[in-house]
This record gives sequence, structure tokens and C-alpha cells, in this order.
Amino acid sequence: MKKDVNKVKSIKVSEIKNPQFLATLNYKELDELAHQIRNEILRVTSKYGGHLSSNLGVVEATIALHRVFDFSKDKIIFDVGHQCYTHKILTGRSLEGLRTKDGISGFQKMDESPYDHFECGHSSTSISAANGFAIARDLAHDNYEVVAFIGDGSIASGLAFEALNNIAHSNHKVIVVLNDNEMSISRPVGGLGRAFANISVNKGYNKMKKRYVSSVSKSKFGRFIYRITRYLKNKIKTILVPPTIFDTLGLAFIGPIDGHNIKDMEKAFKKAKNINRSVVIDICTIKGKGYSFAESDRTGYWHGVSPFDIKTGKPLDAHEGYISWSHLMSDITLEEMDKNDKIVLVSPATLKGSGLEDIFEKYPDRCFDVGISEEHAATMSSALSLGGYHPVISIYSTFMQRAYDEISHDVARLYANATFLVDRSGLVGADGDTHQGIYDEAIFSATPNCVITMPNNKSVAKALFKESLNNHGPFFIRYPRDYIAKDEVEEDISLGFGKWLIEKEGKGKVALIGVGPLLNKVKELVNQEKLDVSIYNAVYLCPIDKECLDKMMKFNKIVIYNPYSTKGGMVNNVISYLVSTGYKGEIISLAIPNKFVKQATIKQQLEEFNLLPEQIISYLK
Amino acid sequence: MKKDVNKVKSIKVSEIKNPQFLATLNYKELDELAHQIRNEILRVTSKYGGHLSSNLGVVEATIALHRVFDFSKDKIIFDVGHQCYTHKILTGRSLEGLRTKDGISGFQKMDESPYDHFECGHSSTSISAANGFAIARDLAHDNYEVVAFIGDGSIASGLAFEALNNIAHSNHKVIVVLNDNEMSISRPVGGLGRAFANISVNKGYNKMKKRYVSSVSKSKFGRFIYRITRYLKNKIKTILVPPTIFDTLGLAFIGPIDGHNIKDMEKAFKKAKNINRSVVIDICTIKGKGYSFAESDRTGYWHGVSPFDIKTGKPLDAHEGYISWSHLMSDITLEEMDKNDKIVLVSPATLKGSGLEDIFEKYPDRCFDVGISEEHAATMSSALSLGGYHPVISIYSTFMQRAYDEISHDVARLYANATFLVDRSGLVGADGDTHQGIYDEAIFSATPNCVITMPNNKSVAKALFKESLNNHGPFFIRYPRDYIAKDEVEEDISLGFGKWLIEKEGKGKVALIGVGPLLNKVKELVNQEKLDVSIYNAVYLCPIDKECLDKMMKFNKIVIYNPYSTKGGMVNNVISYLVSTGYKGEIISLAIPNKFVKQATIKQQLEEFNLLPEQIISYLK
Repeated sequence: MKKDVNKVKSIKVSEIKNPQFLATLNYKELDELAHQIRNEILRVTSKYGGHLSSNLGVVEATIALHRVFDFSKDKIIFDVGHQCYTHKILTGRSLEGLRTKDGISGFQKMDESPYDHFECGHSSTSISAANGFAIARDLAHDNYEVVAFIGDGSIASGLAFEALNNIAHSNHKVIVVLNDNEMSISRPVGGLGRAFANISVNKGYNKMKKRYVSSVSKSKFGRFIYRITRYLKNKIKTILVPPTIFDTLGLAFIGPIDGHNIKDMEKAFKKAKNINRSVVIDICTIKGKGYSFAESDRTGYWHGVSPFDIKTGKPLDAHEGYISWSHLMSDITLEEMDKNDKIVLVSPATLKGSGLEDIFEKYPDRCFDVGISEEHAATMSSALSLGGYHPVISIYSTFMQRAYDEISHDVARLYANATFLVDRSGLVGADGDTHQGIYDEAIFSATPNCVITMPNNKSVAKALFKESLNNHGPFFIRYPRDYIAKDEVEEDISLGFGKWLIEKEGKGKVALIGVGPLLNKVKELVNQEKLDVSIYNAVYLCPIDKECLDKMMKFNKIVIYNPYSTKGGMVNNVISYLVSTGYKGEIISLAIPNKFVKQATIKQQLEEFNLLPEQIISYLK
Repeated sequence: MKKDVNKVKSIKVSEIKNPQFLATLNYKELDELAHQIRNEILRVTSKYGGHLSSNLGVVEATIALHRVFDFSKDKIIFDVGHQCYTHKILTGRSLEGLRTKDGISGFQKMDESPYDHFECGHSSTSISAANGFAIARDLAHDNYEVVAFIGDGSIASGLAFEALNNIAHSNHKVIVVLNDNEMSISRPVGGLGRAFANISVNKGYNKMKKRYVSSVSKSKFGRFIYRITRYLKNKIKTILVPPTIFDTLGLAFIGPIDGHNIKDMEKAFKKAKNINRSVVIDICTIKGKGYSFAESDRTGYWHGVSPFDIKTGKPLDAHEGYISWSHLMSDITLEEMDKNDKIVLVSPATLKGSGLEDIFEKYPDRCFDVGISEEHAATMSSALSLGGYHPVISIYSTFMQRAYDEISHDVARLYANATFLVDRSGLVGADGDTHQGIYDEAIFSATPNCVITMPNNKSVAKALFKESLNNHGPFFIRYPRDYIAKDEVEEDISLGFGKWLIEKEGKGKVALIGVGPLLNKVKELVNQEKLDVSIYNAVYLCPIDKECLDKMMKFNKIVIYNPYSTKGGMVNNVISYLVSTGYKGEIISLAIPNKFVKQATIKQQLEEFNLLPEQIISYLK
């Protein structure tokens, strides 16, 4: 079906209502469509920020999927979910307002579209979800297809392996599209990377087979020979092509396929549809495809971006004069590693996000990027500690949830000394409900032996890091997704272990127990308004400073302010302790409600919960 | 070195001080030693209960390991840890008093012996720990070996895969001994099972190679041919032997080896010592080896046992007239599945432990044993729910920790309706600190959308199960490792969602909020002693019944009693709520302290924490 190319060019991505129009386009037109989609992705992410490279990489793959499958009934689960921008465009959603309050999400969202059947934000859930949908389909004698679309970084996580292991065994067919772009959030790691590299051997085999089939098909005799030899196919393949890890598990395997060739992918997807068992299709894509800065990026800089200038690639807000908390903690880590060669650094694929590149470069032998394997990171760290080293595990609060059991069972229970740098603690803004770092304090407060802290400035951060190197078992240092002034005065202070800091001693009857950088702002406001409030800085969130609390019985009102966590952690423990000592004054607790918090700016989120410093000041009067 | 067999027979396992004597024994004597160790394992487990089959299966393997390695410096980590009885005997520990208060543990314990370098109880941590030790060794330029000993059930878990993936990539050598006994706690599942079955193909190849080497070695010309062909070895092997999953990851692989042939294993272990990269050795063992009941067991009955009669195999305490809570909940599940074909059952390898065999037999298509894959179980269940079914996930409290992130991110966040049957909630007794089910209430109370309940009798259990089928998102029903009278009167009651039960309305000023079967006993005592106490049954632990609490302002004293959890859940939330409403009366909270609780009987554990009904009654006066 040849179409006029000019007609294609008139397709505005903003006018797409649903993917049905794709059937009317030829491959040239589809390539042009891909080009337009890329422009739209660039335009929107440069304006709002978002996930760039992964989305640029899967434009053609998403088009091919929508040509072969009907996702109004077939189901597609994008693993991690942040590479679904093309899917959103093709299913009639505008990316305008991406990741803003009440705007379109950067992830699949069921309430956004009937084409979204599942949601995620954490890695490696897609194959398990696909397995569940496939079982439900077959039990109901329904007949849709289920597709899990997963990257080579995500598939190396334990959860994905459990799922692969189970779908291989199960009679409920799923289709796994492995998006092999040789780059997870950071560099891909592990044996699986090698295994994937081996898959490219298949390329040679596939080419040879194509040639063989085409030559024998030319004559009647050739076709006769082909029929005879076809039954030997698997034998021949076994000899020529080493089986992939998927073959060894008993899964069907197709690939590798060029992930930017729509026609080839369509063929593969159609073939997968016709196979009656679970199948893995390996497609090779180039992350950042079509935008030169992103294509040549090897560090993951262009994975998740803030608003930027498309021409220069420069960020629009350079945070002049500021440093992120991630980089501050990274600097402190490097400084301490310089002094102490027993410190080792472990990162589960968040090198770039937590600003650890310099440390990895300086100490390659003492730094370990384990890939998206938070669980392994924790248990391995326990043994590193028992083996005489001090592991520093740099991890996002939300991803640390994946390692809950290992941190409890292997680190806390064995009292293994380890420093957890809990990046992006508290509300995280635009990533939304899958990424909030507001639960770790509560769940690890409820886990024995855990020491949980949060600094409010550079000096305290450094002092806490140093203290964490002592014999305290797992020592968590939480810090927010925020910036801190570079010229902040830094003092060499020493904190007593478990002791809170008295920020301000008033003469009145009102006390504030607060935490983190936002407490600094409250203190400023208290001083500005000349309020007679005593301010306690709960740098130790767990265990709480009972000695300090014992001295607070004199107050008529105690306000507890934790804008970085739900109430389940320090706040409830303080209340519980005060009650146990017979405190009868007023207690007011101000913390994040125990709910899944949607995307917005961090400020908007705080404001919604009445947790901004200027909002809480009235409680101190 | 030929020894007098009679001398061997005089070795009493109770007189073993350390493994050095093993070097002086010949293979016949070693076999005799294995026989004696088996008798000791049988004697002790029949007296105290414990893990039987797994320990009987690895006697020879453990002897062979101790002959080749020196675990006073080399490190061995037994995965899950419950198969280390032979290791304990060989390192001079008596099994007398196994799993009792202050007695020897059923798991590796670092404070028991310098031969124990790590501890676990949860599955699949061994390879990660080995990785950590190996890195520590190499950074310190030390030279010990690190051995992870892991079963085919445990290696299928995601954590173990993450570790395999990482050791394949790492330059820090570890030795993985895969104990392939074709049986995890329940039946092994998944593609990996198939992959392991394929490994046996190697057997043929290994035999052929042996014959070839021995025939060519016979003549000078033969040895010449051998040298020439040796370099083709890998090519030939690739063609004849399909690579294992370990090969595809890039690990060295040895096996399969007969796991009851000490000599063969020694050879393999020595070979592994000489390989300079990480290596997997596949040994095939028979679970329950040497005890006919256990050998012929296919259901896992002999995995973990209570005291039994060695001759008849019958348990010593048959709990006549009682049914376990596990079986009660299983019966209720079956009853509801009979009525509602949308209910499906998911078990992560705890079929036997939770008494689910009958359901699996009756509804094979609606029951899913996913193996030791708690994480996959949770995410798959989320999709099953979104796909129109109602998953019931039967899981031990302590193992549910492994799926924390998936339950939060995939089930709770997506408000997927699912019933979690949380078996062994509360203190669990002899399994000790790795298995306590006392944390789930706190951590899931701190997770949005979670409904957490605990019944105190059959009627409430049934009512809660029915309620869980309604549209409530994740609905947890906790129940203890305990028994309940079969003839307990059962009523068809209906509970309001989220409502507490008023067990007794007094006229006095004291109220008790309690939970679970132990509350029944407190009520009995209250009635016996004619105390004027109002008793509230907090069947809903989360969310708490605020309407009920609002009516409790009249009391002077509120005692909160939760002997099944730490304070972090219901107890702290009730205190926090009471304080927020301005309640000024006395609040006393009685719950399990937030610590890792060592082995003892459940009664001893409760007693230590002053939580027995007879101990807490004084607070109600």
C-alpha cells in the first residue's frame, strides 16, 4: 500500500487519537513518523525534564509493537515504565505538561488510558506482571497477548529472573521483548551482559540461514532438499549457535533483531504471536537514538534530564552556587575513602544519579556497581563488613525497599557495620507515586539494630558519616532530592552518638522537634518572628534521643515536624515514648500522610500536606 | 593409608573436637563415619525436632568439603543454613539440646564456633555473602577459599541469580556447590529445574571422556593423539554437551558429581580449588538419604519435623483434637475456592508448611507454586488481580519480608485486591532469630492501602477471609504458629469492615485492646478473676478502628496488648491517635520488643517479654 509521503508529513503527533492509523502507513512513512515522535519527545523533555535516552531508543520498537498487536485488548507492560512516551503519543496522549502536577505521568498509568494495563516505576516487574495477566487470560479462556518490554539492565535483577524461571515452566504464554541497548541506568554488569554479547553470534547464523533458505527455495529440487533438512534444523542450530540463557531455561528465543528496523521487528513479533509458548525476542536499540548528545553519552547523563537547551545540550537551570545533596554526600564519601582504605563503595546501578563517577574512577578496586541488584548489594555488603571492610551503600530510598529483607536479615541481624547513603529521602517530586522516599524511615525504625539519621547541613552530614564508620551496625544517612549552597559555612563538629542537637533554647513552653534542611528554614522563620520556641534537631531518627526527651517534660506543647517521612518512624516513636513517661502536655505531629503521593514539584507536594516551613510556623505560636 | 575398620567404629561423634581427624581416615572409614553421623542426626531430630531430610542428604558432601578445605580459615556458607548439622558435628559441636532455649541452633551461628563465618535462615543469601567475603579477601591480599553451599530450590530465587550474575562478572573467585536434590521445600519449579535436568546430559559426556582418556593414554601414540586433540576439547564439548545456564553466564562448571561419593567429590572440590575463577560444582544428592521414610518422601513431610518415633516415623505429639492455624486457614481457603472460581492460590514453596496440598490437588489449574520466589509471587498476584481474579497468597510472615517492595509497589499502590495469608505471624519458637514473624505488622502498617487483620478464633478467621474478597486492596490475615481446638464452636458471624469487636463491656475505668488467640486466654482470666475490664478485640490492626477509640475516652486506663508483633504497628498507631484526640488517661502498651529474638519455645519467648496472659493480667487491675 504505497502512500503519498507528503500526506504522512501532515500527520501531527498532537492529532493522533489512537494507534489505528499506523496500519495505513508504509515503512517510509513510519520512519518519518518516528522522526516526528523523536522531535516531540525532545521538545517536551527539554521543556519539562524527563527520561530522554530510553524513550529515543524505543520509538521504532513501539511503533512496530502497535502495528502487530492491538493494545486495546492485548496487554503491554513497559518495564520501569519510563520509556513509554512513544506509547503515550500513539495512544492519543499529549506529552504537554509531562511530570507536572495533574499533568501527564512519565510512566504508564491505568487512569490515563485504556491502553495502560499495569503501572510501575521500580525495575523488573514486567515479566511477573505479564505472567499474572497470562494466567488470568487462560483461566478465563480469553485470547489476548501479553507483552513485557524490558531492558537489558532490568532483566538482570532477581525479580525478573524469578519471573523468567516461572514463565519457562508455565503453560501460560507471554512475549518478552528484550530491549538490548547495552546500557542500564549505569553500565550493564554481570554475567548476563556477557551472555547477551554472545547472542550476537546468532546474527551470523540467522544470516546464513536466510541465504540457505533463499537458495534452496529457488528450484523444486531445492525445496525438496529444504523439506528434508528442515527437521535437522534444531540439530544444526545447536551446533552452530550456542544456546542463550533463555534457551537453557526452556524459553523460545528470537533474535537479535535490529530495534530500529520496523519491518524486521514486525516479522519477529508476528512470529512470536504464532509460537505457542513463552518467547523472548531480543531487539538491539541505540539509547538516545537521533539526538547526538544522548547517542554518544556513555555515563547515563542523558538518562533522566532536567529542562535543557536542545541545541547546546546545556541544562536551563544550572543551580549556580549550589550542589546537590547527592554530590555533597559523594564528596564526603570520597574524602573519607582517601583517608581510610577499608571503606568500599557499593552502588546498585545509580552511579550517575548519586554522583559517584569520580569515586569509581579514583578507586575502581574498592567500588562495586552490582547493576539493578539492590538485594545482592545488601547481602554482599554484610559479608564485606564481616570480612573486615566498611561498605558504603549508596542507594535511593525508594529502591532500598527492594532490599528490605536482606538489610534486616543479613545486615541488621548480624550487626554488620555498613553506611547506607539513602539518596532521595523524602518527597521526590515529578517521578511521582512509585519513587517517593518517604517510607524507609518507618520500616527501618521497625527493624532491630537500625540507626537512622538525617543531617540538616554540611557539617552535620560530615559528622554523621564519620560516626557511621564506628561500630553501629547498619547506619542510614537520609538526604533529600534537593540542593545546598556551596558556600554554606562548614564546621568540624562532633556529635554524640544518638544525641539530638539543641538548635535554640527558648524560655517559653513550646518546643519543636524537627529534622533535615527544612528545619533550618523553620528556625529562620522562628527567629524572624521572634517566637520563643526551643528547637531540637532530631539528627538521630532512630533510636530516638530519650535522654533529651526526658528533659522536655517541662514544655506545655511539643510539636514534632518531619517533612521527610510518614509518621511511622521517629514521630510515632517519640509520641509513644512521651506517653510512656507520662507526659501530659499537648503533642502535635506534622509529617507526610501514609499514602502514595502523586507527581508535582516537591514544594507543591509539601504545600498540599501543609508541611512547608511557613505553613507550620503557626503551630509554634 | 589403610586403617583398621574397628578403630573407626570407635569414633564417637560426640568425641569429635574438630575436623582434623578426617585426614587420617580412609574412604571405608569415612563411609562408616557418615553412617554414624546419620544416626546421630536421626537421634537428635527425633528427640527435639528439626530439619531432617536436608541434613541426611549432605553428610558425605560435608565430609568431603572438610577434607578438601580448612574451614578454620576457608569460609563456608550453607544456604538457608538448616543443613549444617554434619558441619556442626565435624567442628566439635554436640547437637544435644538442638533448637532449645540457650541450646545449639539449627542454623550456622558465628557465636557458636569459629568455623561459622556467616548466618542465615532465609534462602538464597549464600552466593552474595560469598561474593562479599571473596572481595574482602582479595582486597586484603589474603588467600582463603569461599564456598557457598546451595540447594536447587534456593538457587532459583532472584537474590541467588543476582549473585551468580555478579560473581560471573567479578574477578573475586568463589566456589558454589550446587546441591541438586531435585527438591526444595516443596517441589522445585521453573525453567531452572529443566535446566538442571539437562545437566545430566553431561554425565554421558563425562563418562565418554573418561573412557577416551583412559584408552588413548595406554600407548605412546595414544598420548600423542591425546595431546593433539586436547586443544579441541572445548570445541568437542560444545557440540556434545549443551552448555548449562552457568556456562552461559560465564562461570566455570564441574559436574554432575555423585553427592554420596566422597572420593569423587573430593576430586571435584580439589579441581575447583585449582581453577582461578568462580566455579559451580553440581553434586547430586538424595534428600533424606539413609532413612527410608525420608528417602521416599515426595511431599516435603520430612523436611522439618517435630519429635517423632524413629521406628514408626510417627510424630510423638499428634496434637490430638487440635488443628494447626495453617490447616484451619487452608480449610477456609478451600471452602471459599469451592464457591468462587475466581479465587486462585499462590504459594512460594511452602505447600507443606502451610498445609495446602489438598487445595493444589483439587484445583491444579488455580494453584501456583512459584518456588522460592516471594517477590515474583507478589507482582504476579497483582496482575492476576487486575486480570479479574482474586489471588490468595499463602506465605510465612518472615519470608514475606523478601517481597516488601513488590507488595508495596505492585499490590498496595495499584490497590490490587489480594488476600495474604500470613502464616507463622508472631513468635515462632525454635527456628529463632531468622524466622520471627513479628515485624510484618509494623512495616505494612507503614505502607499505604494495607489492611492488616488477625483473628482470635475460627469464626472470626472465616469472616475475615470472606471480607478479604471484597474490594480492599491487599488484605493481610495474620495467624500464629499454634494450634486451635477442632471442636471450637464456630458461628457464622459478619464483621463490619475495619471494626473492632467488643468482647466484654465493663463498667469500670479500665479498658484492654488486645488481639489474637492469646486475647481469648486473657478474657478467660479476666472473667475468672472477675475484673471489671472492657475488652476490645482489634481484629483490624490496620487501619485502626478510630470510631471505637473515640468512644474510649471515658476510660482512665487503656492497656494495649499485642503479643504477636512489635510496637511499630497497631500499638503505636493507637497511642498516636489517642494523643491526637487529646486523651489524657494512662496508656500502657504491651508488645514484643523491637529486637531479634533467639530460639526457645514460644511460651518461653513470651514469658521473657512478660507477655503471657497470666503475666499481663496485673496491668488490668
